[in-house]
Amino acid sequence: MTVPADSPIARDGKSIILAHDHGLEHGPGAFAGVEDRLDPSTVFDMATHDAVTAFAVQKGLAEQYYPSYDDQVNLLAKCNGSSSLWMGEPYSPQTWSVEYAAEMGADAIGYTVYPGTNTEPQMFEDFQEVQEEAREEGLPVAMWSYPRGQAIKEHRKPETIAYATRIGLELGADLVKVKYPRSGEAMEWAVDAAGNTNVVLSGGSKTSDYEFLSTVETAMDAGASGLAVGRNVWQRDDPTAILDALEKVVYEGQSAEDALEE
Amino acid sequence: MTVPADSPIARDGKSIILAHDHGLEHGPGAFAGVEDRLDPSTVFDMATHDAVTAFAVQKGLAEQYYPSYDDQVNLLAKCNGSSSLWMGEPYSPQTWSVEYAAEMGADAIGYTVYPGTNTEPQMFEDFQEVQEEAREEGLPVAMWSYPRGQAIKEHRKPETIAYATRIGLELGADLVKVKYPRSGEAMEWAVDAAGNTNVVLSGGSKTSDYEFLSTVETAMDAGASGLAVGRNVWQRDDPTAILDALEKVVYEGQSAEDALEE
Amino acid sequence: MTVPADSPIARDGKSIILAHDHGLEHGPGAFAGVEDRLDPSTVFDMATHDAVTAFAVQKGLAEQYYPSYDDQVNLLAKCNGSSSLWMGEPYSPQTWSVEYAAEMGADAIGYTVYPGTNTEPQMFEDFQEVQEEAREEGLPVAMWSYPRGQAIKEHRKPETIAYATRIGLELGADLVKVKYPRSGEAMEWAVDAAGNTNVVLSGGSKTSDYEFLSTVETAMDAGASGLAVGRNVWQRDDPTAILDALEKVVYEGQSAEDALEE
Amino acid sequence: MTVPADSPIARDGKSIILAHDHGLEHGPGAFAGVEDRLDPSTVFDMATHDAVTAFAVQKGLAEQYYPSYDDQVNLLAKCNGSSSLWMGEPYSPQTWSVEYAAEMGADAIGYTVYPGTNTEPQMFEDFQEVQEEAREEGLPVAMWSYPRGQAIKEHRKPETIAYATRIGLELGADLVKVKYPRSGEAMEWAVDAAGNTNVVLSGGSKTSDYEFLSTVETAMDAGASGLAVGRNVWQRDDPTAILDALEKVVYEGQSAEDALEE
Amino acid sequence: MTVPADSPIARDGKSIILAHDHGLEHGPGAFAGVEDRLDPSTVFDMATHDAVTAFAVQKGLAEQYYPSYDDQVNLLAKCNGSSSLWMGEPYSPQTWSVEYAAEMGADAIGYTVYPGTNTEPQMFEDFQEVQEEAREEGLPVAMWSYPRGQAIKEHRKPETIAYATRIGLELGADLVKVKYPRSGEAMEWAVDAAGNTNVVLSGGSKTSDYEFLSTVETAMDAGASGLAVGRNVWQRDDPTAILDALEKVVYEGQSAEDALEE
Repeated sequence: MTVPADSPIARDGKSIILAHDHGLEHGPGAFAGVEDRLDPSTVFDMATHDAVTAFAVQKGLAEQYYPSYDDQVNLLAKCNGSSSLWMGEPYSPQTWSVEYAAEMGADAIGYTVYPGTNTEPQMFEDFQEVQEEAREEGLPVAMWSYPRGQAIKEHRKPETIAYATRIGLELGADLVKVKYPRSGEAMEWAVDAAGNTNVVLSGGSKTSDYEFLSTVETAMDAGASGLAVGRNVWQRDDPTAILDALEKVVYEGQSAEDALEE
Repeated sequence: MTVPADSPIARDGKSIILAHDHGLEHGPGAFAGVEDRLDPSTVFDMATHDAVTAFAVQKGLAEQYYPSYDDQVNLLAKCNGSSSLWMGEPYSPQTWSVEYAAEMGADAIGYTVYPGTNTEPQMFEDFQEVQEEAREEGLPVAMWSYPRGQAIKEHRKPETIAYATRIGLELGADLVKVKYPRSGEAMEWAVDAAGNTNVVLSGGSKTSDYEFLSTVETAMDAGASGLAVGRNVWQRDDPTAILDALEKVVYEGQSAEDALEE
Repeated sequence: MTVPADSPIARDGKSIILAHDHGLEHGPGAFAGVEDRLDPSTVFDMATHDAVTAFAVQKGLAEQYYPSYDDQVNLLAKCNGSSSLWMGEPYSPQTWSVEYAAEMGADAIGYTVYPGTNTEPQMFEDFQEVQEEAREEGLPVAMWSYPRGQAIKEHRKPETIAYATRIGLELGADLVKVKYPRSGEAMEWAVDAAGNTNVVLSGGSKTSDYEFLSTVETAMDAGASGLAVGRNVWQRDDPTAILDALEKVVYEGQSAEDALEE
Repeated sequence: MTVPADSPIARDGKSIILAHDHGLEHGPGAFAGVEDRLDPSTVFDMATHDAVTAFAVQKGLAEQYYPSYDDQVNLLAKCNGSSSLWMGEPYSPQTWSVEYAAEMGADAIGYTVYPGTNTEPQMFEDFQEVQEEAREEGLPVAMWSYPRGQAIKEHRKPETIAYATRIGLELGADLVKVKYPRSGEAMEWAVDAAGNTNVVLSGGSKTSDYEFLSTVETAMDAGASGLAVGRNVWQRDDPTAILDALEKVVYEGQSAEDALEE
Repeated sequence: MTVPADSPIARDGKSIILAHDHGLEHGPGAFAGVEDRLDPSTVFDMATHDAVTAFAVQKGLAEQYYPSYDDQVNLLAKCNGSSSLWMGEPYSPQTWSVEYAAEMGADAIGYTVYPGTNTEPQMFEDFQEVQEEAREEGLPVAMWSYPRGQAIKEHRKPETIAYATRIGLELGADLVKVKYPRSGEAMEWAVDAAGNTNVVLSGGSKTSDYEFLSTVETAMDAGASGLAVGRNVWQRDDPTAILDALEKVVYEGQSAEDALEE
């Protein structure tokens, strides 16, 4: 099973996943300068943009706000997470059961895995269960695949990112989200290593419009199936403008320059 | 789901939760000077005060005394806890199953989480299960959200408290109880970070009437939905008087001064 | 639920629990001088004494001997235990399921908890499950509440014993067994802290008849509901004599002196 | 429940258990000099000897060979085990479920426990479940009771062996297998400490015919119910001869000398 | 149960298992020089070769590609695995449930065990469950038996490999895959120690055609039931040629020389 072209979370096989789990993962400090976005409905509003194929949130946000948006937004249930207050070995515990996510109307499941850490075995087992429960519910699975730990000196090294996407393929993800490996060639390797599994670029921290879009352009040219973006959308003054531009780069194959000029 | 205005544990969307788990959390030393309160029926009596929307106790107290008070008291089942004898990393193990609490007639579930500690992953997982079991029983969930651990140098820092309430929202709490972050402005941030989740002030250790009530007043002005109070009620000589005053500040919007003068 | 006056393990709300798990907890060395008592039927015989309201043993002894005594003896299934060979942090693993104990005809469940140790969280969770399983079977639960660990410098300190009984109440024990806190006043505090939960004195290691009985007398005067005794009965040459005397002190309110004179 | 006189694994209440789990516990080096015995059918053949009341093997040997011997051999399913490659704290993980063993036609369950080690709590819990599952299947349970760990300076000390048998009784074993405590008097203590639980001698490493048989004779005189023997049978050139002799010592009460002379 | 002559994963009792879990176990670096093989369909194509009796892959590869090959390829579901990014004690967590593998049409189950490591107890328990679940599904089980850890100074020592195969037999594997112990004599010992369990040679890292095939020839002469091979096939420029040659050596008993000459 891959994310089919007619999947609810893809458009012609491509996806723009708006992610908004930063309240948990980064804390309220991530909202500096855009304090009004602490109100999740402001970001749910962004997720109604046509360009967005899925909105990734934790259970609590889905419980409180998704019922008002369920006909405009596709829900990607982010089923694990941790706070940045925690100083231990990277590990992301389960925060939402697949069964309950399905019951709430989720269109897909998202799960973070940290290959290379001391918790890799536990996370592989966690992912095994979550992935198979998603299969039972008929839901596609997106893996946030972030190699870390003592063996990872440079976590955006081409081979590390290609390993990250391959792990997504091998363990049964339909879609794997990875950090940008710093070149189109490296991105191509990562896409090749993923086989039929879709690769989406992780949006990362906020950068300039052009820098951000041209990275997306390079990734798309390298075969990526889209991106999962958070701060580069919801931390912006004008989220609609950047989503308009992303729509052109991701679905219409425009260059970053063209997308911005229009 | 949030705590609705007509919830059994709220009055017009506001709550005064009387908490009495100090016998477990602090031990009999907490009853110094008010030794007669070792008899839980004396505190159950306080919980019959009109101002109190819910009474938070451990399983044993509920088993032994709640049957005599079930038509006068709304039960908030505090489902985890630990003793102060324990010197290990903060962790609060489950002491009461949601299913049994529901069977005993609980109106809501309460659960402590310590973000930032080494046990954060375990507590997030524990909370995940408890929260979803409460959903199955149709019960609202209150999180005692207390960041601790090596990364928390000052556990009442504004950002720490705002993170604490946000974690409540993200993980699916309907109501989140936090320590007072020392100013109304900081409390406002915490309330904003919680989105639709209700924020209640943690009463803390016993202070003077005025000091206590004016903190409550500030919190209410900042958007808090009430408070959860224990020692500031049951350690007092006249619990009724302070509950009368709290009723005015919380539900009627009176100032601390006015509430005390009457 | 408390141990009602008409409970099979109480007489007018008072209990003498004969305990015989020393083979596991202390080993065969505990039988020095009374080697014939290695045969459990000799101690089962003692448990048929009218004064004994319940006999606390491990699963194996119950399986092998209880069928011959089930109409004369009330079985208190001691469902956890450990050997004295073990040098680790105090922890008492489960050795008998509540369900099987109920099936074998147990009249009550007994479980040890060590508050204050590094295993407190685990033991609280273990107790939570055992207690609720006992509720399902309709069986009262006795907690052996023994604070230990790095924070407990003096494990018979009045506050420590009062904390021990309070933990029994808070966690849902019907009856809590504690060490003697060295004075009647301290025992009274412990009884008060337990609320409606019955407090029984732990018999401890063998002492003289008078010393033992006058401790029991003091405990009864302080409000205790009886005692759980092992070595002070089965290590004695004449167990019947001491049980006769205990009967007078516990149920008839006689003084130690009077009970011994007769 | 004890092993009744008419149990399939006893003859008049006495047992000779042939054990053959050395391939797992000791490795192929244990077959030095008797390499043909690497073929398990050679040892299954020995188990058809009339003297043998039960044959103790791991799951794999039972799966592959027992179907050809099931009308001649009583199967004692050894349900845990570990390799000698492992250097950690003694622990014997479960390798065979009781349910599957019963389904395969096992006549009894065998399980190793190491009291006194850091894994004692875990092993007591493992044994608890296994023992109760065996009860559900109606199967007797044999405990290999081997105290080890930092507190055990001399693991054949009389008190240690008596403690080992007592643990078997307390935890619900029908039969307990212990090392020889070096004298008949110590063996008698161990038998007394076991109450109604049968005690069988552990055969140990290979010794001379006379030495081996006279130990068995002493143990039988001390009240043992037989022995569990492995290497002293299957490592011998003539296993039939030693089984003939054992039969005389164990069931007919002959002396070692007489048994060998015939 | 052993792998019968008419098993889907054997031909006349012999097997060539093509393994392709290197994307997970070794990472994309293993594809250096054969980058087109990152596309799993290229290796699935190799698995359609007549010589291959089973194809061993992880869940994700099976989900994405097996449906297109299910009438040409026998699926051996490799149900655990780990990445080479991980630096901890060797341990291979479960990545695929037996139940789901069976549902997907798997013909056999494969599972790695590392005897001698600190995780041996956990892996034995994992294997116990997996093996019994496979029995319920009627599927044969192959153990990758790789002794490691502090006690294993030389992991291809004859006794270590014989121990590895014996562990496969004892724990219930139908087929055990081991490293080559460096001589035919040692291989014979390993085959003897395995009893009725089939022993297959682990192909190892890529070597010359002759070196590889003559090792296989020696192993077959020593009684091996075939081999499990990965890199020595899929890393080769001409996988068909080596599979043709392997077919002759394994099934037709040709020498390496003859097989290559033709």
